[in-house]
Amino acid sequence: MEQVITFGEVLMRISPRGHKKFIQSNMVEFFFGGTELNVGISIANFGGKVKHISLVSEDFIGDAALSYIQKFGVSTTSIGRSKQPLGVYFLEVGAVMRPSSISYNRSHSAFSEIVPEKVDWPHALRKGSWFHWTGITPALSKGAFETLLQGLKLAREKGMVVSADPTYRSGLWQYGKNPKEALTELLHLSTIFIGGMDEINEALGTDFSYSNDDFMEASKMLMEKFPSIEKVFDKIRTSVNSSWHKIRARMWNGTEFRETTDLDITHVVDRIGTGDAFAAGLIYGLQHYGDYDAMEFASAACALKHTYEGDINHTTVKEVKGILGGNTSGRFVR
Amino acid sequence: MEQVITFGEVLMRISPRGHKKFIQSNMVEFFFGGTELNVGISIANFGGKVKHISLVSEDFIGDAALSYIQKFGVSTTSIGRSKQPLGVYFLEVGAVMRPSSISYNRSHSAFSEIVPEKVDWPHALRKGSWFHWTGITPALSKGAFETLLQGLKLAREKGMVVSADPTYRSGLWQYGKNPKEALTELLHLSTIFIGGMDEINEALGTDFSYSNDDFMEASKMLMEKFPSIEKVFDKIRTSVNSSWHKIRARMWNGTEFRETTDLDITHVVDRIGTGDAFAAGLIYGLQHYGDYDAMEFASAACALKHTYEGDINHTTVKEVKGILGGNTSGRFVR
Amino acid sequence: MEQVITFGEVLMRISPRGHKKFIQSNMVEFFFGGTELNVGISIANFGGKVKHISLVSEDFIGDAALSYIQKFGVSTTSIGRSKQPLGVYFLEVGAVMRPSSISYNRSHSAFSEIVPEKVDWPHALRKGSWFHWTGITPALSKGAFETLLQGLKLAREKGMVVSADPTYRSGLWQYGKNPKEALTELLHLSTIFIGGMDEINEALGTDFSYSNDDFMEASKMLMEKFPSIEKVFDKIRTSVNSSWHKIRARMWNGTEFRETTDLDITHVVDRIGTGDAFAAGLIYGLQHYGDYDAMEFASAACALKHTYEGDINHTTVKEVKGILGGNTSGRFVR
Amino acid sequence: MEQVITFGEVLMRISPRGHKKFIQSNMVEFFFGGTELNVGISIANFGGKVKHISLVSEDFIGDAALSYIQKFGVSTTSIGRSKQPLGVYFLEVGAVMRPSSISYNRSHSAFSEIVPEKVDWPHALRKGSWFHWTGITPALSKGAFETLLQGLKLAREKGMVVSADPTYRSGLWQYGKNPKEALTELLHLSTIFIGGMDEINEALGTDFSYSNDDFMEASKMLMEKFPSIEKVFDKIRTSVNSSWHKIRARMWNGTEFRETTDLDITHVVDRIGTGDAFAAGLIYGLQHYGDYDAMEFASAACALKHTYEGDINHTTVKEVKGILGGNTSGRFVR
Amino acid sequence: MEQVITFGEVLMRISPRGHKKFIQSNMVEFFFGGTELNVGISIANFGGKVKHISLVSEDFIGDAALSYIQKFGVSTTSIGRSKQPLGVYFLEVGAVMRPSSISYNRSHSAFSEIVPEKVDWPHALRKGSWFHWTGITPALSKGAFETLLQGLKLAREKGMVVSADPTYRSGLWQYGKNPKEALTELLHLSTIFIGGMDEINEALGTDFSYSNDDFMEASKMLMEKFPSIEKVFDKIRTSVNSSWHKIRARMWNGTEFRETTDLDITHVVDRIGTGDAFAAGLIYGLQHYGDYDAMEFASAACALKHTYEGDINHTTVKEVKGILGGNTSGRFVR
Amino acid sequence: MEQVITFGEVLMRISPRGHKKFIQSNMVEFFFGGTELNVGISIANFGGKVKHISLVSEDFIGDAALSYIQKFGVSTTSIGRSKQPLGVYFLEVGAVMRPSSISYNRSHSAFSEIVPEKVDWPHALRKGSWFHWTGITPALSKGAFETLLQGLKLAREKGMVVSADPTYRSGLWQYGKNPKEALTELLHLSTIFIGGMDEINEALGTDFSYSNDDFMEASKMLMEKFPSIEKVFDKIRTSVNSSWHKIRARMWNGTEFRETTDLDITHVVDRIGTGDAFAAGLIYGLQHYGDYDAMEFASAACALKHTYEGDINHTTVKEVKGILGGNTSGRFVR
Repeated sequence: MEQVITFGEVLMRISPRGHKKFIQSNMVEFFFGGTELNVGISIANFGGKVKHISLVSEDFIGDAALSYIQKFGVSTTSIGRSKQPLGVYFLEVGAVMRPSSISYNRSHSAFSEIVPEKVDWPHALRKGSWFHWTGITPALSKGAFETLLQGLKLAREKGMVVSADPTYRSGLWQYGKNPKEALTELLHLSTIFIGGMDEINEALGTDFSYSNDDFMEASKMLMEKFPSIEKVFDKIRTSVNSSWHKIRARMWNGTEFRETTDLDITHVVDRIGTGDAFAAGLIYGLQHYGDYDAMEFASAACALKHTYEGDINHTTVKEVKGILGGNTSGRFVR
Repeated sequence: MEQVITFGEVLMRISPRGHKKFIQSNMVEFFFGGTELNVGISIANFGGKVKHISLVSEDFIGDAALSYIQKFGVSTTSIGRSKQPLGVYFLEVGAVMRPSSISYNRSHSAFSEIVPEKVDWPHALRKGSWFHWTGITPALSKGAFETLLQGLKLAREKGMVVSADPTYRSGLWQYGKNPKEALTELLHLSTIFIGGMDEINEALGTDFSYSNDDFMEASKMLMEKFPSIEKVFDKIRTSVNSSWHKIRARMWNGTEFRETTDLDITHVVDRIGTGDAFAAGLIYGLQHYGDYDAMEFASAACALKHTYEGDINHTTVKEVKGILGGNTSGRFVR
Repeated sequence: MEQVITFGEVLMRISPRGHKKFIQSNMVEFFFGGTELNVGISIANFGGKVKHISLVSEDFIGDAALSYIQKFGVSTTSIGRSKQPLGVYFLEVGAVMRPSSISYNRSHSAFSEIVPEKVDWPHALRKGSWFHWTGITPALSKGAFETLLQGLKLAREKGMVVSADPTYRSGLWQYGKNPKEALTELLHLSTIFIGGMDEINEALGTDFSYSNDDFMEASKMLMEKFPSIEKVFDKIRTSVNSSWHKIRARMWNGTEFRETTDLDITHVVDRIGTGDAFAAGLIYGLQHYGDYDAMEFASAACALKHTYEGDINHTTVKEVKGILGGNTSGRFVR
Repeated sequence: MEQVITFGEVLMRISPRGHKKFIQSNMVEFFFGGTELNVGISIANFGGKVKHISLVSEDFIGDAALSYIQKFGVSTTSIGRSKQPLGVYFLEVGAVMRPSSISYNRSHSAFSEIVPEKVDWPHALRKGSWFHWTGITPALSKGAFETLLQGLKLAREKGMVVSADPTYRSGLWQYGKNPKEALTELLHLSTIFIGGMDEINEALGTDFSYSNDDFMEASKMLMEKFPSIEKVFDKIRTSVNSSWHKIRARMWNGTEFRETTDLDITHVVDRIGTGDAFAAGLIYGLQHYGDYDAMEFASAACALKHTYEGDINHTTVKEVKGILGGNTSGRFVR
Repeated sequence: MEQVITFGEVLMRISPRGHKKFIQSNMVEFFFGGTELNVGISIANFGGKVKHISLVSEDFIGDAALSYIQKFGVSTTSIGRSKQPLGVYFLEVGAVMRPSSISYNRSHSAFSEIVPEKVDWPHALRKGSWFHWTGITPALSKGAFETLLQGLKLAREKGMVVSADPTYRSGLWQYGKNPKEALTELLHLSTIFIGGMDEINEALGTDFSYSNDDFMEASKMLMEKFPSIEKVFDKIRTSVNSSWHKIRARMWNGTEFRETTDLDITHVVDRIGTGDAFAAGLIYGLQHYGDYDAMEFASAACALKHTYEGDINHTTVKEVKGILGGNTSGRFVR
Repeated sequence: MEQVITFGEVLMRISPRGHKKFIQSNMVEFFFGGTELNVGISIANFGGKVKHISLVSEDFIGDAALSYIQKFGVSTTSIGRSKQPLGVYFLEVGAVMRPSSISYNRSHSAFSEIVPEKVDWPHALRKGSWFHWTGITPALSKGAFETLLQGLKLAREKGMVVSADPTYRSGLWQYGKNPKEALTELLHLSTIFIGGMDEINEALGTDFSYSNDDFMEASKMLMEKFPSIEKVFDKIRTSVNSSWHKIRARMWNGTEFRETTDLDITHVVDRIGTGDAFAAGLIYGLQHYGDYDAMEFASAACALKHTYEGDINHTTVKEVKGILGGNTSGRFVR
C-alpha cells in the first residue's frame, strides 16, 4: 500500500484571534500542528494514506492531539505516550509590516524524549512507500536525531522514497550535535530534496545566489555530493509584506530545469504551514503526476494554504486542480 | 402608498467565523437571508416601504426569522407558517484563490410547500406599487412557480412595476418544469430586466458576447421578444480573486446606453447578497431618480454591500450618496 | 474481535450558547450526535472497539461529521454518502422550570434515504460481537426499518448480542408502518432490553405502573412474549426541574431483581444523550462485569454525562470507577 | 383595539459573559431594556398588542434600539429621537453570596430630555386601552414626570386601565421634585397597584410589616387614600442567595385576599427584569383571566423570566400555562 | 527623571467584532483609550516613564480603566475619581469605501467635571520633563481648558518640553469658549507643534495649501506668531480607501525641511489612535534621536499602529527599528 | 510601610469555556495565577501594598504576565526574566460528580531556574513587613527551596511576620530533597501556620483526626515543635460535589479555640484559588482586626472567591464585610 510515513513532533499552537496580542485578550484558540504532521495531514486531505510517528503527552492534551490527528484519517497507531508535556508554541499574528511572533515551549517536550527504542520501525514502516523528514527533528534532541536516522536507514533498505526538507533553524540544535554533520548523514539517505538556496548552501558550505543559474549549478553539485538525491525542488516566496505574498517554484531533476509563474496571494489569512503544504503537494504530486505537474500542484497547494487558518492545509485535489485550471476568480462552489 | 413587494424563500445561513471550515470549529454564526428578502430589507434600509411574502416554519427558527425581518421594519403580515423546516444553507468563506463553498438544505423547506391558495394576493398587494421577483423562486417547486405567476398577473393588472432578476441556477429546477418556458412566462409579466448577458442569452437562446455592443443589441432583441420590458440593467463583476473585486454597471432603456466606471473593492468582507444589493439600489433609485442616476446609486450600493457581513445590505442613502459624492477615502463619520 | 456495531442517523445539533434563544444571538455552536452514534462514541471513549453504520451527506457538512466520528476512533468504513443533506436539529436549552426545546429538520435527511442495498451487512458485521439499535431508526423511514431488520437478522445468525433501546417517539413514524408491529419484529431479534415501563407497556399493550413490583412482573411478561430477551434494564429519572435531576436504575435478569441508589445531579450541564450514556455504560459493563456491576457502571456513566456539553459522553472508565468508588466530592485530578 | 401603552426610558445594558468583571475580559454583550419596555415586550411575546413611547438617540445605537423593539412586534411609531446619547447601564453578574453590581450612565440620556411637547399623546393613545407606568420614569427628570402626568390624565379621560409599579429608587430623583408628592399625583390617576409593602409604606407614610394581615390592612388604606385604585398585587421574593430565589404573590382586590404558593428557582440565570415580567404577566392575565388566575399567571411568568438571559421575558402563554399545569420537570418540548 | 506627562480624558470604546454593526450582533468588545492616554501608553511601551493625569468614574468601569492604564506601567497616582460616568464611544468599523462611524457619549463624563482644584499640578509634575496636550481637552469643558492651562503654565516655568497636537474638532467646543482664542493661549505655552496644514491654518487664520512649499512657509509664520514653538511636524495620510492607507511625514525645525518616504499600509487593521502613535513616536524619538530620525521613528510607529486592534500602539522600539532597518517583509520573529 | 511580600511561580492557566474538554473546542481562555501570586493580588484588591517576587519568561507571554500583575497594582520590580518558558497548566472544569482535571507543564519553567543569586533579597524586602510562602515553592526545584530559605531568614532577621501555607503535593518534589526536612526548616522560620490536619500531620508525623479536639491538640504540639509559630488557622471544606461546597474555619492562637459557621456555596463558579483567597483574607485580616474577626473575614473572602472566574479573588473589603454583615441574599449593588 502507498502509505506515506511522517515522523516528528506534534505541537499545540495557541494564539489570540485576529491580530491581537496576548496582552490584549484572554480568549485564545489552539490548533495542533508540527511541520511533518502538517505534511501528513495535508496528504491525507488529498486522499493519500498516511501514518504519523511521534511521542505525545499522557494527559488530556495528548488525548486531544491524538484525536485531532485521527480526525483527518491519519494513522496514530505508531504514536507513543510520554510523561513530559506536549510541546507548545504561542503565536501573535502580525499584519502588513508587523511580523508575526512565535515563542516556543518545547525544549523538554514529550517528543524530545524520543529514543530509538521507543519506535518499532519495522512495524511502523511495514506498509510505507514514502518517508518524509525535515531539519527540525534532528535539531530537537540526540534521541530524535538517532531515531530518525534509524528510521531512514530502514526506509532506504526497503526501497522507500525519502523526501527531505532540511530547513535549518539555528535557534534549535541545543544538544551538542553539529548540524551540518547531522544533515549530511541524513541527506545521504534521501532521494528528494525540497529546499532553496539557503538549505543547499548550508548543506554544501557554498555561497550561491538566488538566481536560476545558480540554482541549477547548486542542484547539480548537491546531487554529486549526495548521489541518492534525484530531484531538487525549491519554493520561492516574495513578500510585499506580512499580508501579501507571492509564491513560485523551480526544480532540477537531473535533466530538466523548470519554473512556475507567480501566484499572487493578496490577502494572506495564515502563512504558517505553507512550506509544509508545498512539501505535501509535491509528495502527492510526485505519486500521481510527472515532475513539473507535481511542482505546479505543490505550488497551488502552497498558495491555497495561505487562505486556511491554522497549521493544516485543508485543501483538496479538486480545489488545487481548480486553481491550475485557471479558476482563481473565487466564484462560489455550490 | 409606494410599497415594494418581494416574494421568495427565507433561508438561514450558517457559517464559521472568518475563513474557517466546519471541520475546524464548532462555533458558527447565522444570518437570515434569501435573494428577494435581501432586496426587500435593503430597500427598507434606504427608507422604503416593503412587504415580504413567504412561508416560514412553525418552530422557534421560524419565529426567529420573522423577528429578524420585523427588525428592519419590513412587513411580515403576509408571511404564512408551514410544518416543514426553514431552508438552511451552510457557507465556508474562501479567500484569495480559494472559492467560498455553499451547501443547501432547502429541497423540502417550508417555502417549497407554497401553493397559490396559501397567499391572499389581492390583500397582499393592496398597497403595493412595485413587485420584484428572481429566477430562484420559480426553480424551487411547482407551487412556488404557480404562486409567483399568479402574483405577477395581479400585479400587472394593478399596473405595478415588475422588476425581474431572472438568475438561472441549473442545480435547482428539480420539479420538472422547463426553466426557459417558465422564465418566458414570467418575463412577459415584467417591466424591468436586471441581468447580464448570461440571463439574456438564456432568455433568448442566443450567444451574445459580453461586449457593450452585444449588450445593446441583445437588450433590443429582448425588448422585442418581451414587449413589457422597458429597461435592461446589467451589473458586471471583475474578480481579481475571492478577496478583490471590481463592480460596474450598464443599461439600455430603449433610447440610451450608459455605463458607470469601475468601483474597486480591494478587501471584500462578504460578497453574498451583493447582486441583491444592486437590485435593491436600482429599485429604490428608479423610484427616486432618473435611469442613469439610479444605476449609479445601485452600483455604489452593491459595492458597499461587499463591506457588510451577512446577506443584508445595511447601507443607507446617505452612505451611498457619500460614495457617489466622491468620498471613498473612508474618513470617520462622527 | 469484540466490536460493537451501532446503526443510525448522524444528526447535527445547533444551539445558542448558555440558555439563549435563537432570537437572542447569532452566535451558535454545533455538535454531531444521534442516539446510536452517541452510544458508539461513548463505548469508544471507554476503550471499546466500535463501528458506526450510517449514511451522511456528500457535502462539507458530511465531511465534518465523518471527521467528528473518526476523532473518537470509531470506524467509519461502513458509512456511505447521500445527495440529501445531513439531518439537523436546533436546540434551545432551558433551565429550572423552563423546558429545553428541540426543532428537527430530518424528514428528508441523508439517512432517511437508506435502503438495504446501501449497506453491505456481511462485510459491516464481520468483526462485530454486539449490535445496538434504538426505536428511533425504524421510525424514520421504510428503508431505515428494513435495513435495520436485515442487519439484526444477520447479527442473530452470527450469534451476536443485540441490545434494544426501543424508545417510542410518536412524532416520528410518518411513513405508514405500524410502530408496535415494527418494534415487535425487532424485539424478537434482541437479547437485551433497555427501557422503562413506557417502553414495556408499549411493547406489551399493558398498563403497568412504575413500581418495582410492576417492573418485575412486566419484565417477566416481556421475556415470555419475546423469548430471545434475557435481561431488562431500566433507568429512572426524577426531575426536580430542568436543572436538577436524580438517576437510578433497576434490572431483572430472569433470576434477580436489583436496583441502584439515586445519584443526585444538582447542576445539570446538558441532559441530551444521557439515556445513550446509560446504554453505552451498560453495553461496556456487560462486556466486562456482572449484571449488577454493569448496571451500576451504566448509572454512574449516565450521571456523568449530565456534566458534559454536547451529545457525547466523554467520560472514561477511570472516571466512572471513581464515582463508584465513592469519590463524588469533585476533588481535582492532577 | 386592546393596545397596551408603555412609556419609559430605553436603556442599553452591557455586561461581560458569565460571572466575569469588566476588569477580567474585554468581550461583553449587550441587550436593550428598561423597566417599562420590558413589560411591553413581554406582553407582545404573549401575543398582546403593545406600543412603547420613548425618546432614543439619533445615532446608530438609537437605530439598533428601535430595531430591537420592532423585532418583538412592539410599535415604535411614537418613539422620537434626541441628540443626547441613549442611557447605558453596566452590569457585573454575581453568584451565590456575591451580589450583582450595576453602574448607570443615564443622567443626561436621550430620554431625560423628554418634555410634554415631544409626545403627541392623543395620537399615541388613540388605540390604547391600558397604560402602564413605573416609579422610575418620574424620577428621571422634570420633563419625564410632566410628560407622564399628561399621558396619564388623557388615559384616564379615555377610560383606560392604568397600572402603576411605583418602585421607589432613592438614587434617582435628582431634579428637585419631592418623590412622595409626585407619586401621589400619579397614583391618583392609577387603577391597578403593583407593589409590595415598601411601595405601600412609601405611598402612605406608614410602617406596615410584611405579614399577610398587614398587607391586607395596608391595601385597604391605600385604596381609601387613592380611590381610583381597585386592586393591589404584590410579588414576594425570598432569596437563598444570588443564585437561588423563591417567588410567590398575593393580592387584595377589595373583596378577596389570595396568595400563590412558592415557585422555587434553584438556578437563577438572570434576575434582571423579573419584576417587569410579573407586571407583564399580570396585565396580560387581567386582560384574559380573573384576578387570581392572572396573579398565578404573573407569578409563573416571573419565575420563568429568571431562566432567560437579558432584560426581556421571552416566555409564551403556552410555556406559562405548562408551568401552571404542573409541568415543572423540564421535559423536552419537541 | 525623564517622565512624560499626558493629560486628558479616558474613554471606553465599545464596538462589534470585525465589520459588524450594533444592529447585527450583541457581542461586542471594549478597549480603553483617549488621545492623550494613547500617546502615554505608547511611550511606556517604548520603555519611557509616563504619568497620565485625568478624572475617571468611581464605579467598576473606572476601576477597570485604572487597571488598564496600570497594566502598561503608566503611573495613575494623579488620576482622580468622579461621580459622573466614564466617557464612552461606540464604533462601527468600516471597510473599503465604507467609512467607520463613531458615536460619543462623553458630554457629561467624569473628565468633563475637571476643574483646576482637582489636580495638584506641583505634585503631579514633580518628576516630569515633557508635557503633551491635544486640542481635544480644551474643547471638552471650561474646567478642562482651565486645568490644562494651569498645568502648561507650571510646565513651562519648570522648563519642560511641551508638545501640542492641536487637532480641531468642531463638534466639540460646546461650552462657549472661542476655540481659536483657547488654542492661541495654549500654543504660546508649547514648544513642539505636531499637526498639518489644517491645524496651522486654523491657528493662523490662513489658507495654505498642502504643498511642501506652503508647509514650510506656514511653519515659519507659525513660529513667528508663537515664538515658543521650535519645531513643526506633520504626518500626511493618503487613503486609497478605509482599508488601504499610506503614511509619510515632514518637518521644519527652523533650519531644515525634511520629509520621509511613503509607508504603504495595504491592509489596515485599526486606524484609531494612529495619529497618537505618531505623536508618541515623535516624543520618544526626540528624547533619544535627532529631529529627522525621530520623525522617521514616529512615521514607522504610526504605520505599525495600523496593525494593532484597539486604540493603543503596542509596538516596541525593536519592532519600529526593524521597519526602519528595511525589514518590512513580515518574516517571523521567533 | 506595611508591604506584604509573596514569592513563587507565576503560571498561565489555559482552559476551555464552561465545562468543555480540550477535545471539544479550540476556543480557550487563559488567566495568570500561581498560589502565592493569588494571595498577593487578593491582598492588593483589599487595598494592601504587595510585592511579588518571581522569575518569568523573556517572551511576550512573560510580558503579558507582568502586565497582568501590574494591572492589580502589585509591584513587579523584583521579578526577573528567564530564557525558559513560563509554567503553564491546562484545566478542564468539572461539574457535579465530575472532578476538574489539571495537567501541568512547569517542570522546566522560568521559575524553576531560580537560584539565590537571582533575587536581591535585601532590596526586595526593604519595605516589607509580612512574608507569605507556600509548600509549592520548595517542591519545585533545589534553587527554589534555597532561594526561599534565604528570603525567610532575612525576613525573620528583619522581624517580619511570616505566614506559611505548607500544602504538601506529592506529585512535585522531584529534585531529591526530602519534603519533610525541607518543610521543617521553613516552618522554623514561620510565625503563622495556615493549614489543616493533613499539613499538621505531615509536619509532625502524627495521625490526628479532623475533630476539633484533635485540631487543638495538634496545634499545641505544632507550636511546641516550632516555637516561632504563634497561631494556627484551618479552613475546612465540605463538598456535596464539584458544584456545591461548604466552607468554615477554625483557629488556635495559643489561648483560644474558635470556629466559624458554615458558608454554603450552592453554585460554585470556580474553586481554583479559594485556598489562596483564605490565606489572603487572613493576612489582610490579621493586619487590621483581631484573630477571630480575621478568620471570619478570611472565611467570607474564601467563599466569595468561589464566585469569581480565574485564579484571582476580585473581592473587596466592602463586599466581604457585606457578607459578614449578613447580606447574603444577593440584592443588587447599584
